[in-house]
Amino acid sequence: MQDNARRQLRQLLGPENFLEEREDCLTYAFDASEGACLPEAVAFPETAEAVSEILAIANTHRIPIVPRGAGSGLTGGAVPLSGGIVMTMNRMNRIISVDTDNLQAIVQPGVITARLHAAVEAKGLFYPPDPASMDICTIGGNLAENAGGMRAVKYGVTKDFVMGLEVVLANGEIIHTGSRCIKDVVGYDLTRLFVGSEGTLGVITRAVLKLLPLPEGKQTLLAAFGAMEAAAQTIADVIKSGIIPTTMEFMDKHCIRAVTQYQDTGLPVDAEAVLLIEVDGTPHAIETGIKRVQAVCTANRALSVDVARDVADQERLWQSRRAIHAALGLVWPRWEEEDIAVPIARVPKMVRRIDDIAKETGAFIVCFGHAGDGNIHVSLAPHDKNTPHEALTQARAAILKDAIALEGRIAAEHGIGLIKRNQIGWNLDAPTLNLMRQIKGLLDPNGILNPGKVFPSTLTCSAPFGH
Amino acid sequence: MQDNARRQLRQLLGPENFLEEREDCLTYAFDASEGACLPEAVAFPETAEAVSEILAIANTHRIPIVPRGAGSGLTGGAVPLSGGIVMTMNRMNRIISVDTDNLQAIVQPGVITARLHAAVEAKGLFYPPDPASMDICTIGGNLAENAGGMRAVKYGVTKDFVMGLEVVLANGEIIHTGSRCIKDVVGYDLTRLFVGSEGTLGVITRAVLKLLPLPEGKQTLLAAFGAMEAAAQTIADVIKSGIIPTTMEFMDKHCIRAVTQYQDTGLPVDAEAVLLIEVDGTPHAIETGIKRVQAVCTANRALSVDVARDVADQERLWQSRRAIHAALGLVWPRWEEEDIAVPIARVPKMVRRIDDIAKETGAFIVCFGHAGDGNIHVSLAPHDKNTPHEALTQARAAILKDAIALEGRIAAEHGIGLIKRNQIGWNLDAPTLNLMRQIKGLLDPNGILNPGKVFPSTLTCSAPFGH
Repeated sequence: MQDNARRQLRQLLGPENFLEEREDCLTYAFDASEGACLPEAVAFPETAEAVSEILAIANTHRIPIVPRGAGSGLTGGAVPLSGGIVMTMNRMNRIISVDTDNLQAIVQPGVITARLHAAVEAKGLFYPPDPASMDICTIGGNLAENAGGMRAVKYGVTKDFVMGLEVVLANGEIIHTGSRCIKDVVGYDLTRLFVGSEGTLGVITRAVLKLLPLPEGKQTLLAAFGAMEAAAQTIADVIKSGIIPTTMEFMDKHCIRAVTQYQDTGLPVDAEAVLLIEVDGTPHAIETGIKRVQAVCTANRALSVDVARDVADQERLWQSRRAIHAALGLVWPRWEEEDIAVPIARVPKMVRRIDDIAKETGAFIVCFGHAGDGNIHVSLAPHDKNTPHEALTQARAAILKDAIALEGRIAAEHGIGLIKRNQIGWNLDAPTLNLMRQIKGLLDPNGILNPGKVFPSTLTCSAPFGH
Repeated sequence: MQDNARRQLRQLLGPENFLEEREDCLTYAFDASEGACLPEAVAFPETAEAVSEILAIANTHRIPIVPRGAGSGLTGGAVPLSGGIVMTMNRMNRIISVDTDNLQAIVQPGVITARLHAAVEAKGLFYPPDPASMDICTIGGNLAENAGGMRAVKYGVTKDFVMGLEVVLANGEIIHTGSRCIKDVVGYDLTRLFVGSEGTLGVITRAVLKLLPLPEGKQTLLAAFGAMEAAAQTIADVIKSGIIPTTMEFMDKHCIRAVTQYQDTGLPVDAEAVLLIEVDGTPHAIETGIKRVQAVCTANRALSVDVARDVADQERLWQSRRAIHAALGLVWPRWEEEDIAVPIARVPKMVRRIDDIAKETGAFIVCFGHAGDGNIHVSLAPHDKNTPHEALTQARAAILKDAIALEGRIAAEHGIGLIKRNQIGWNLDAPTLNLMRQIKGLLDPNGILNPGKVFPSTLTCSAPFGH
């Protein structure tokens, strides 16, 4: 970074909002992926105007800018590959309004997702997107990554709750997409272009989010199956029954065994698959829904169907799902992870294919995830100490290719980032990928916004450390 | 159009799919707006490949292309302002699949909306968008205009049901946006860029649409109020009560009087506003919902609350709403129309403002529309034979300005097209409009796609006729 640029930024932000010491920069070298790279400075803008001025300076001096929230991303989206400035949005953390009359909230990007949940629920409203990291991640990060979660089956993902955005472009211009109106056909819909663009097209400084009335209650059911096929058929039959559950989570046999070794879950010892299903709504809708789901489970020869007796008992049923990460951590410390999606009804086929891939490659593979929305999280480990690392690499590639063959996607809710940038072309045809590149070129002609991400690239870290 | 281009197109499409006679072209000079302009030819492609070849030829020879469906648009979007070729998508009218397992349909653009409704409902599924023209309009037109309808209160508009698109770009390249997966973060979300782009960015040749389970039933309630304020408060209170009705339609006093003169509606003679509210779901949800809505109406001193006794009786209640166009037609043959949106809770304020504008300008103004989603349809006529036409022009401008002051939009569900192209800058700040223009320039560098639409322009019809 040139000295005059540094001086301008110091003057603009002041010493509290512009950190240049190596130890400060180190903290912002990482996200929750394995990637790391040292930035030259960390900026903490407090207003859209400050973001605009930072970007104008950066654009003039060709300084890379990596916007970030909590850094809980799993694909390296917030790793500052080319150094430059990490722009942390956490100090823009105001919930500007929670509007009960219009069912919407206006927020700054640094608001922690769980804080928004609490704020709107206190007013009888509901913001459904619930990424697993919701206690630490921010709305800005959720928007940039189009974060998903467990409630997507019924409610959709982050993009389905964004009505409008304020975005600062690479050249410092501030634009406004969408509006506070349900119906709005004034010009092109630019909102979705920025949602999920992983900080490569602009910096989101405000969002109008759509809210729903808070469901009156919810109920949980855990069903264990002796065969994968039976669980898979249950998922399909529930969807066909006209009930859309809030969540429909799935654990395979390896996952069940890991969790059972970790804690007493009370699951049948011969369970090959578990479904954890939640239904929400009015007491009557919950009762009807749970009964129908129960009947579908029984018709598909569930080994056990456990309906929570009360709110506290719901927690008990969720324990096995929540224990997955800790339980898998005891089995193997450094799992590799994939995050794929297929059309809902193809989840069983995909899970069977993953089982075959494990056998073919010698990788040890565990599946769990959001079966009801077609999103499977795949964790890979060496089968034993003789398993070569290529087995895992080979297995991961095979999983992505098979997902694609089923009209699926190589990234469902964790982004493309750094980790999958060179596989993106597997999922997108050349003219489509080319148009995306052209849009990137139009919005960020100097390539200052999060360089080296999303698109195929050989760019590596400009400032590795600790080696 | 150059002779060699004509020859290429004749050869490509054959005489049945490429019409050049003046009488054939005349049919495609119009849409449902007042605009009209004669094209030089009409093309009827039957495949995406044909669309691609037509566009490649047109792009090379700089021939304007105006894609259209049924031509039921109200803002001149399908009027071929620069002549060239009208590309009618009606022969690409296959419902490729209705997938009950994955809750989605794959369709070509020429499918009539009501035909899709029937096809999916026969399988117990539901495609909510219901523009008033649904018996004749096409899905392609709905996508290009981001069509709304009455069920937007609960379900949203066309854009909320699009998972993916096949689009032919101006240069003939075929791209694929989105996918068949609920969760998908592979690259930029280009789907919404094309939905609502009014044929100016590309030609949609296939769509993956999201479906829902068909609600088990529905129930209708008609409430009459002695004061606008009471009706308005009812709308707000219903939304706050935690019930989201399927539809919440509104008619003002002028509208009620016109309809009452036209047919016996049984409405109280002193009614100043009417709400027509529909609730759908399970029988229990309907019963609970209608009771709660009824209570809200009563608490707001409704003059009458009429709940349909059965399905046939629901039709009776809908009669007054359906009679609006015919009834207004008897009052005045050539109404001018506006289509605005405001945040839901600001509907009462907007309706009061419109009342004031009528008084201030001397225009006669009738309001009805989708109060539950903030969309008001405003019909304007001269107050009497002495009213100058400027009064209407002045009133329309004042309505748009006041909608904007309430954070509303100058176009809700009828597009910008030709009619509002010079007002779009009232609603969009310069950097935002500029980015939209740049995107247009990127996707259609030769400006062949629907020239003169959406953006401010002085382009007038190149081939007027009948004068």
